[in-house]
Formats: sequence, structure tokens, C-alpha cells
Amino acid sequence: MTDPLDHPWLAGLFGDDQAAAIWAPERHLQHMLAFEAAFTRAAGHVGRMDRDAAERTARAIERAQIAPEDLRDGTSRDGMPIPALVARLRDVAGGDVHRGATSQDVMDTAQALILREINALLDARLAEFVDALDTVSQRVGQHRLMGRTRMQAALPITAAHRIASWSRPLVTHRARLAALRPRVELVQLGGPVGDRADLAPHGDAMAVHMADALGLHTPDGTWHNVRDGLAEYDGLMSLISGSLGKMGQDIALMAQQGVDEITLGGGGGSSAMAHKRNPILAELLVTLARYNATQLPAMHHALVHEQERSGAAWALEWMILPTMTRVTARSLSAAITLVGQIEGMGTET
Amino acid sequence: MTDPLDHPWLAGLFGDDQAAAIWAPERHLQHMLAFEAAFTRAAGHVGRMDRDAAERTARAIERAQIAPEDLRDGTSRDGMPIPALVARLRDVAGGDVHRGATSQDVMDTAQALILREINALLDARLAEFVDALDTVSQRVGQHRLMGRTRMQAALPITAAHRIASWSRPLVTHRARLAALRPRVELVQLGGPVGDRADLAPHGDAMAVHMADALGLHTPDGTWHNVRDGLAEYDGLMSLISGSLGKMGQDIALMAQQGVDEITLGGGGGSSAMAHKRNPILAELLVTLARYNATQLPAMHHALVHEQERSGAAWALEWMILPTMTRVTARSLSAAITLVGQIEGMGTET
Amino acid sequence: MTDPLDHPWLAGLFGDDQAAAIWAPERHLQHMLAFEAAFTRAAGHVGRMDRDAAERTARAIERAQIAPEDLRDGTSRDGMPIPALVARLRDVAGGDVHRGATSQDVMDTAQALILREINALLDARLAEFVDALDTVSQRVGQHRLMGRTRMQAALPITAAHRIASWSRPLVTHRARLAALRPRVELVQLGGPVGDRADLAPHGDAMAVHMADALGLHTPDGTWHNVRDGLAEYDGLMSLISGSLGKMGQDIALMAQQGVDEITLGGGGGSSAMAHKRNPILAELLVTLARYNATQLPAMHHALVHEQERSGAAWALEWMILPTMTRVTARSLSAAITLVGQIEGMGTET
Amino acid sequence: MTDPLDHPWLAGLFGDDQAAAIWAPERHLQHMLAFEAAFTRAAGHVGRMDRDAAERTARAIERAQIAPEDLRDGTSRDGMPIPALVARLRDVAGGDVHRGATSQDVMDTAQALILREINALLDARLAEFVDALDTVSQRVGQHRLMGRTRMQAALPITAAHRIASWSRPLVTHRARLAALRPRVELVQLGGPVGDRADLAPHGDAMAVHMADALGLHTPDGTWHNVRDGLAEYDGLMSLISGSLGKMGQDIALMAQQGVDEITLGGGGGSSAMAHKRNPILAELLVTLARYNATQLPAMHHALVHEQERSGAAWALEWMILPTMTRVTARSLSAAITLVGQIEGMGTET
Repeated sequence: MTDPLDHPWLAGLFGDDQAAAIWAPERHLQHMLAFEAAFTRAAGHVGRMDRDAAERTARAIERAQIAPEDLRDGTSRDGMPIPALVARLRDVAGGDVHRGATSQDVMDTAQALILREINALLDARLAEFVDALDTVSQRVGQHRLMGRTRMQAALPITAAHRIASWSRPLVTHRARLAALRPRVELVQLGGPVGDRADLAPHGDAMAVHMADALGLHTPDGTWHNVRDGLAEYDGLMSLISGSLGKMGQDIALMAQQGVDEITLGGGGGSSAMAHKRNPILAELLVTLARYNATQLPAMHHALVHEQERSGAAWALEWMILPTMTRVTARSLSAAITLVGQIEGMGTET
Repeated sequence: MTDPLDHPWLAGLFGDDQAAAIWAPERHLQHMLAFEAAFTRAAGHVGRMDRDAAERTARAIERAQIAPEDLRDGTSRDGMPIPALVARLRDVAGGDVHRGATSQDVMDTAQALILREINALLDARLAEFVDALDTVSQRVGQHRLMGRTRMQAALPITAAHRIASWSRPLVTHRARLAALRPRVELVQLGGPVGDRADLAPHGDAMAVHMADALGLHTPDGTWHNVRDGLAEYDGLMSLISGSLGKMGQDIALMAQQGVDEITLGGGGGSSAMAHKRNPILAELLVTLARYNATQLPAMHHALVHEQERSGAAWALEWMILPTMTRVTARSLSAAITLVGQIEGMGTET
Repeated sequence: MTDPLDHPWLAGLFGDDQAAAIWAPERHLQHMLAFEAAFTRAAGHVGRMDRDAAERTARAIERAQIAPEDLRDGTSRDGMPIPALVARLRDVAGGDVHRGATSQDVMDTAQALILREINALLDARLAEFVDALDTVSQRVGQHRLMGRTRMQAALPITAAHRIASWSRPLVTHRARLAALRPRVELVQLGGPVGDRADLAPHGDAMAVHMADALGLHTPDGTWHNVRDGLAEYDGLMSLISGSLGKMGQDIALMAQQGVDEITLGGGGGSSAMAHKRNPILAELLVTLARYNATQLPAMHHALVHEQERSGAAWALEWMILPTMTRVTARSLSAAITLVGQIEGMGTET
Repeated sequence: MTDPLDHPWLAGLFGDDQAAAIWAPERHLQHMLAFEAAFTRAAGHVGRMDRDAAERTARAIERAQIAPEDLRDGTSRDGMPIPALVARLRDVAGGDVHRGATSQDVMDTAQALILREINALLDARLAEFVDALDTVSQRVGQHRLMGRTRMQAALPITAAHRIASWSRPLVTHRARLAALRPRVELVQLGGPVGDRADLAPHGDAMAVHMADALGLHTPDGTWHNVRDGLAEYDGLMSLISGSLGKMGQDIALMAQQGVDEITLGGGGGSSAMAHKRNPILAELLVTLARYNATQLPAMHHALVHEQERSGAAWALEWMILPTMTRVTARSLSAAITLVGQIEGMGTET
């Protein structure tokens, strides 16, 4: 166990319970079942299957008892969990399950369902963060700080001026998120090579029906190998944590002895120096900003996604995107807590 | 000289004359003068200066004869060219030049003027690329290719299906660019610590006046230390080159002996093997995609922009952003040329 | 749970049991106790404590019953687990525990003990991999392949020639690892600000004694804020996975229909196409190479480690280094398996 | 022109005349000619050519008048300058020029010759930097600073303690450089597909002869597609600039008003605030550290170098490695200047 987001002790600092719950494997697996059920019902809707048989099959899928660990051996063998999942589902729900779909349809759609939940969480936290800063600004905004450029004292400013540089980008990020959600909360439906040929002439109608059932958007075609929405999305994750990193860096600098422009409640203890109060969360915001910035290029390298499906590029996404969303969620929760710890800023004029 | 974009021989491959001209230092310097002139006229407009004196000063600024090299020593000393520039301008146009502005106001605005020109170039090329692919698709779209997933033959597809995976993201990128332009083609005006205090109560009115004169947008406040627009913009650069990299990789794979699913005119020679025709531009698209993906995090690290102005973070942008825009422009020109070299694709059915 | 190395199903592909066991939190915690015990015994050795009392204290430390989860709240509060750990240890082993040490001493030393085990694993696997390739080369080395440059057929080569390009860098990496181990398998001992002042005049002697007891090397001074050894080490991790990624890419290309220059046993199934045998492990090697390449800069950004200890830079290491070691270990195990799956290569001449 | 290392004004800050001269295209071209001459003489030495004819040919190569720009069109066409170069050389020195070699042999060897010169420069600067810091430490080493951890005042330290954290890694880097030079200052000789088949049975003897003539090391085989030495080398570049970035960050923090633990001569002026003295070079070290850290992964992605030669991966190296060496050289020159500007540090005790 090395992932600091789930590690027994490090998760105390890096973890975020709500984001972790959204990415829980059990829940992830339920989203996969939801895809298969919706796919089957859509087949009934367009007449590829008898509608009642489709409904019975979908319900059998939804009732399937499968544990995440059950898919481990299959993933080891096939490089992804879906062949094993489909085999299990066909045992309990019949051979029509998944006919005309492909593994990536299931996995991308399940991920889209997760991202929808993550996005709702991020949106709420962005709003909460901006509100929390507004509250601080109302309290101390007219206090005086020394404006600093190139790490040198320049001219006095108001606390409100600096706080605005922390808050404004997050307002923009919220608008970016709203604009981007329809580009990532998308049904995936393409079949083996992405052309919906096995589903013809019903593929488009099935995609619309599934999107409606699942609460997702309908893509403008298959996006098996067209991944710009996900790369843009990870860019937004890093924009959010990067903007919060600026606040963290500023607060750590303001908390220095000799500068003394902020007073924080909380703060971490030292094993050696009882007098110290370390600005743990301010530092954490810098760490998380640099972490997400580091991860970002992987999703852009994964744009070089060869042919109809690249195993190498796709699996790289799995290693990167989920963690980036959780780091972003943690950035926001840490930032909200940190803003709440601000007891004073600057000097009254 | 190590920059492949301007190198005497490497620029034959990596360079792009139009993008290079937009970033020419002489033109860049003219944009700086345009800022100072517009700033002075805005001061006349709002009554900080006598309007006629402002106009005379602005014209003197515009007529100033300054060579890019003249700013080298000053940049060495001050870390940026503006103090030296202002000293020169005050010699020829009087002491009111730049009063109330700061170096970053000039530099960010001049860069915004460059980005406006780059964006027009990118927009035109995105359109041209999509058109060029449409033409190819009309010609060979119904030909048959072997669809390949995980680098293995899967099922036959149409050429049009693969071409669509090259074209569709570029259509989206064009929409992204249009949406993003108002977030980067922005006047910068903040004064020494970004609060427009020296310009009060006229700062906002001056910014509007300047934006109008310069053909830029008016920001929602100073963005000296709020750089998310630029980071998002570099993300778009990498999205564009990344999507083109997918096409390049696909074409290189299609051109393999044994696969033989594309016929290209052009192609590079070998110093050792006269029979070879190398798919130079297809490979170049992969190279440029990975180059831009590599650069991207720098602009996100630069979001951790401490206090009112970070010399370290800001200078990092100078090292990264201009080149990324030119690499993106070159990706598009190379892709357009490459698409024009497609003589055949797949087999008639 | 999003870490593919520990995820219920993804770990089937990405996980490595041996490397995971080395990084197990329980074992990690034992290494922390080993530090505290060795530190106490060293204090006895140099006469800072009564030798018998030191031995009794050390034994009490070693018998301490602490679960990883017990340190979670403390990590949340203090940004690291050691203040909570020390409090627990003082309860059971007395107030002298940790006197004169600092949290980073414990954490860096515990990590060094883990790296020692990881390095032994990597070393053995490097040797095994090279041997496995030698065996293949003996079997098929004289077969003929088409040499390919710029993805175009060039001139025939022997299989042995290509195999050598897979094997040779790993031989070098093994030598690099041997040279590097003394720069990372290091005791950390500095005290609160790294100058061993609280331990004077015994600090150096204590470090030597501890290194001897723990099986580590003695550093040339404290390395709290001098992290080049770790950054170099992560570079080696990425060199290893990168070289293996080249083999993976080559094998995936050789396995293409139309090229058909390699025959592999194993291979993953598809949920939609029963005829396919996907070169899962070859692709995985590319994925892991790009993953490690992506991570690498974080450890170099963390070199900008301000003053005597940077909370932000140090915590970034925790997010990056452990996973990179495990990814490297998995690269090697996957490569060894993949080499074992090679049934044929090239054509007999 | 966007490269800050050669830009008319930005080069005042980012440029380094000595490193620029080493990478000058004219000099680079001379190294290519040196390869061709040495290759021809080696052919004479082993008896592939008449020895006198070889010598005459080699001299004709060395006298060839070719301008860097002459290779631009060829690079545009062939993706590299060598086919055009060879055509020119055959015009003046006969058709035997380059027979049995390949473009990559020329380009990699010419680069190795450049790296040899760069390495000598870096080595000298590393020594000079360490000496300069020693001098400062002798002067102010016993002064008192406040030791700071997690950006909080911890306990007093000596100035010598902090200076040692700046100096020690550079001592290690110098040793690393010495150990690494034989892995990058290497002749490249492989012929079209890297197996020296066209040169058999003389290939190995020719490589030894050429290495001797050119002052390079003889590789253990061809390294056309085995690029770990170059990736390791770029890692060292980033280690050097990263360690210097730590010093830069520390100095910028020490120069803050309220902290006031360092006095610097020099320092940059502001266009708006005459009183400011900005720690330009300290900031620059941070910028350059983050720049190099950013670039690093490209060389690791380029390890995934498919088959006998990857046009895409190789060209990526050209975009990255030369600039990283120059940035590293500039880091060292800036650091040496900055250390020379230290007028005082800490307080006498």
C-alpha cells in the first residue's frame, strides 16, 4: 500500500472520504452493471431483443452478486475486467448480455458515471470555497498587507486584494467545470471497433436511450480513441489544484516569523519542537498542486491513441485520471478547512 | 542556437514561417510600444493627462526607434526588458510615459496581442485541416481498412470511420479556441502591485479604453498573479498537437510494409538506403505531440505564483508558452501537408 | 480505491505481490520502530544514555504494539505520523525515546530500509530478465527479422541484434543500481534542523553505529534537504521501465498481423472478439514506461526544498517515490513473464 | 524567435555565451565533417579503402565549404540534414564518403563531440561554484541564521550549515558527471540498421579507430535505439539545476523584508518602484530548475524507441537535450554570479 490517498496513516492527510467513496470498487462495479442493464434495455427499446426479455435480463444483471475481487484474475489475463464480468453475467442473465458492445463501452461509461458524481462534489466545494473566502474578506478585507512582488516588499495593499487573487480563479473554474461536464459525462457505445456496426441501424438510438436512462450525455459518435475530453478534464483538475496551490504558498509565506501577516488556528505539531505550529494544510495545497501538474502530461501522451483502441494509452489513463480527481477533491476540502482556520490577516488601518 | 524552431537546418522540419513572424522580436517590441501608447492615450481620455499632451506623447512612443538588442543589457540587469524600455521612451517621449503602470502590464499585454495573432492563425489552420480531411474522406471514405484494437487486427471498418477519429477532435478544438480567446486576449493593467491604486479612480475606465484601442478584451480585474487562463491555453495547445499526434501515429502504422493501408506522396530519403520513403511528417506529428505534452506542466507549476508577482513563476512562462504556440502551429501545418500527401487509403470494396 | 497497484481488479494487471509486501504499512511501521530502537541503542553506545537503560528502552520500542491506523489521526493533525508514534512509544518505553531526533530522521531512515529491500528485488529481477533474454537469443538469435527504421522496412537483421537492444540497457541499469545503492540506502540523522546539534559531540558516531545496526550506509552529513540521491534513484526507476517499454513496443509491433515476426503464448481475450489474442504484457510495458516517465519530474521539483525542511517538497516525494519503485518492480516481472511467452521470433534462415 | 536562450533581449537573462558557442550550428557542422573524415580514415586504416585515397577523401571532407543553411531544405525533405550533407560531400570528396554509415551515426557522434565540450564546461563550473561557496562559508560560516522547517522558525543554525546544503550536492554532481561522461561521449557507428553488417568484419575496429581519432569513448555496440545514456545524462542536468534551485529559493526567502538574513549586491530594478532591488538571479535559479525538471520526461518517453530507429523518438531528443545542457550551464553561471553577490549572511555571534 503506497497510495497516500488510501494509506492507513497518510490518508489522514491526503485522503478525502467523499471522493474515496465515489471511487469505491463496489460502486464502480455497480456502474458497470448499470451499463449492461441499460444496454440491454436499449436493445429491447429498439427491437434488437424482445422488450420483456430485455427487461428480465436487465434485472438479472442488476441483481448479480459479483465482488470486485472476482474480476482480478480476469484482469490479469485479459488486461481489463470486462471479459470476466461478462462471463459471470451471462451465467446469471443469459447469453444476450453485452452482445454488440465491447469492454471499452462498459468501462468508459462506468467511469463517466463516476465523474458525474465527482463533478457534483467538486462543484459544491468550489462554491463553498468561494463563499468561505468571501466571508473572510468581509471580515478582514480592509486590513493592510504589504504587497510583495518578486518576494520583495513593494507597496501596501488591502487583504481583500490578495484574497481576490485566491478566489477569482476558482469562480472561473466553476464555470469551466459546468461547460466541460457535457464533454466527459458521456455514454460510450461503439462496439468492437467503435463503428456501432453490430448495432446497426439502431446504434445511435440505443446510445440516446442509454444516456437518458443513465443520466449522461450522448456523444457525437464513439470516443474510444478520441480522448480529448478526458485530457481537457484532467487539465481542469490541475487548474483547480494549481490555483489553490497559489493560496497555500501565499499563506505559508504570510505565516513566516518576521512576516507575520496571518494567524491560523490548528496547525501541526513537531516531534522535536513543541513550540512550532506548522501550516500543514497550506503546504499540502502546494504539494497537491505540484502533484497534479506532474500527472497532467500522461493524459496528453495518451491522446496519441493508436488506431481503434490502444491498450497502452488507455491503461495509462486508468493510472492517472482517478487519482487526479481525488487529489483535486482533497485540495478543495483542505482549502476550505484552511480558510476556516484563518483567524486574522494583516493589520487594521 | 539549439531551438529547432529557428535553427538553420532543423527549422526546415520544425519551423513555421508564419508563426515565427508573429513572434518576431521586432514585432513583439512594437506591441510593447502599442501598450505604452494606448496607456498614455487612456490617461488622456480619463483626464489623468492633458489629452493633447497624451496624444503627442503616444505618437512619440510609436515613433521611437528601439532595436530588440537595445533591451538586452537591461534584461540582464533587471530580469525583464521594461525598465530599460521605459528609460528609452522617457528620453524621447517625456517623463509621463508608463506612470502608474508596471512592467508586467506591458509584457502581458504585448503577449496578448501576439496570442491574438497566433489564435487567428490556429483557427484558420484548424478549419483548413478539417476541410482537407473531409476531402480525403469523400474520396476514399468508403474504402475498407482493417480495424485494429490493441495493435491487433479486429474487424474491418471504413476509411471514413478512422478519418473521423482524426477530424472530430479538431472540430472540438476549434470551438474550444473560440471560447478561450476572451480569457487570454486580455489587456493587463494593474500597476506595481496589481490593485490599480496609482490609477484610481480611473483604472477600470483606462483598461476598457485600452482594450478597445488594442482590440483586446477587458479582464475582470488584474491577472498579474492569476494565470489560469494561460495555463488553460497551453492545455489547448497540447490538446491540438496531441490529437494530431494520433493521426501521425496511425499513418505511420498504416504505412508499414505488411500493413500497407496508406499511400503517401513525398516522404523523406535515407542517407544509406535509397529505396526507403520515410513518413517524416507522420513521425513529426508524434514528436510534436509528445513535446507539447511534456511542456504542459510548467504552466501549471507556474500557477503557484506567490504573492502579487512571482519572478520565478512568471519567467518560467516565458520559457514555455511561446514555443508551445509555435509547435502547435507547426503541428497544424505539418498535418495539413501530410493530409495532402495521402494518395490512397485502404482497399475499394 | 483508485491506485491500480492495490485495486481489487486492476492489481491483477498492475500489482506485484513481492513489491507490495515490501511496502506494506505494517512492515513500514516496523522499520520506524527499528530506527527508534537503533537510535536509542546508539545513545547508549556513545554514553548519552546509560547503556543498559538504552537496551531496555530499545527492546520496549521493538515490542510496542502499534497498528498503522493508530497513526492516522496524528498524521492528519501534524502532517506526518511521527509525533503520534513518538507519543505512543514514550508511553510504553519512556520519555527518552526519540530525544534529539526529528520526524524526518525516522521517516527517511525507514524509507531507506524499504529501498534496500526493493533494490535487492530489482537487482535479482534485472539478472533474471537478462538471463531470460539470453535464453531466447540462444534459441532464436540466428533467425531473420526485417530491420525497421522510422517504421519502414530497411534491411534484414538477426533476431539476436534486436534482442541485444532489449537486453544491453538492463545490464547497464544493474550496474547503475549497484553504484547508486550507497547513495539511497542511508541512515538519516540530523535532529530538528539537521545539524545534529542536540546530539553533539556524538552525532557522527551515533550515525555510524545506527548504520551498522540497520545495515545501511552512513551519509556524508544530514540529507534532510539534500535530496539528489532520491531524485537520481527515481531517474533509475524510469530508466529501467523505459528500456523495458522499448521491448514492449517492439513486441507489440512484431505481433501485428501483416508483420507476424513474433509468436506469443498467453495473451488476453476480448469481450467482443473471441479470435483475438491481445499482447497485454507488451502493452503494459509501454504504459508503465510512460507512467514512470510522467512521475519523474516531481522528484526534481522536490529538489527545490526550501531551508532546513520543506513540508511541501517532502510530502510530494511520499506521493511519488513509493509507487515508482513498485511500477518498476512490476515492469520487470511483466517483462520476465513476457519473455517467457515468446514461442517464436523471425524466420529461420 | 522565442527561445529565451538566444532571444535578443531575453538572452541577457537566460543566455550563456560559452554554452551557446559550443552549440553553434557552424561548430556542430564541423563535428559532422569530423565524423565523416574519421570514418573515411578508419576505412583506410582497416583496408576497406586504399589508405592514401582515404586520407585524400578525409581532407577533402574537412575542407568542404558548407553553410548550416545549406542543409535546411534537405532537413525539410528528409527529416534530418545528413542526406543533403552527404550529397554535398560526395560532390567534393567522391562517392566513397559515408559508405556503410548512416545518418544517425553522424548525428549522434557529432552530438557526442558537443557534449564532451559541454561537460568540460560544466565540470569547470561545478568546481568554481563549490570553491565560491567555500569562500563565502569561510567568511560568514559562523554567523547565526534562524533554522527554518516547514517555513517556520525552528532553532538557530550556523550559516555554514545552510551553505553546506547548497554545496554538498554539487560536489556529488561533479562525481556523477565524471562517472557518466564515458556513457555519453561515445562514437556512434552502426550503419543502416545498427548491426555494422555493411562494415563487417571491420566495424568494431573502425569504431575503436574513430573513437581514438575523435577523442571519444568506444561504445559497447551500437546505441541507435538504446538511449539510456542520454536519458541518464539529462537527469543529471536536472539534478544540477534542481540543486541550484534550492539555493535560489533559499536566498530569495532570506532576502525577504522581515527575514533579512542575506545582503546581496546587484539586484534588478523595477519600472515602477525605484526602491526595490529584486533578487533576479535567485529567482532565475528556481525558474531554470523547474524548466529542466519539466523537460526531463521527454528523454524518458524517448526510451520507448521502436525497432532499429524511431524517427519520432529521436527527433524528440533534438528538441530537448541541447536546451537542457544550456540551461544547466546557465544555472551554474548564474549561481556563481549570485554567490559572488553575497555581501553578508546571518548575524555575528
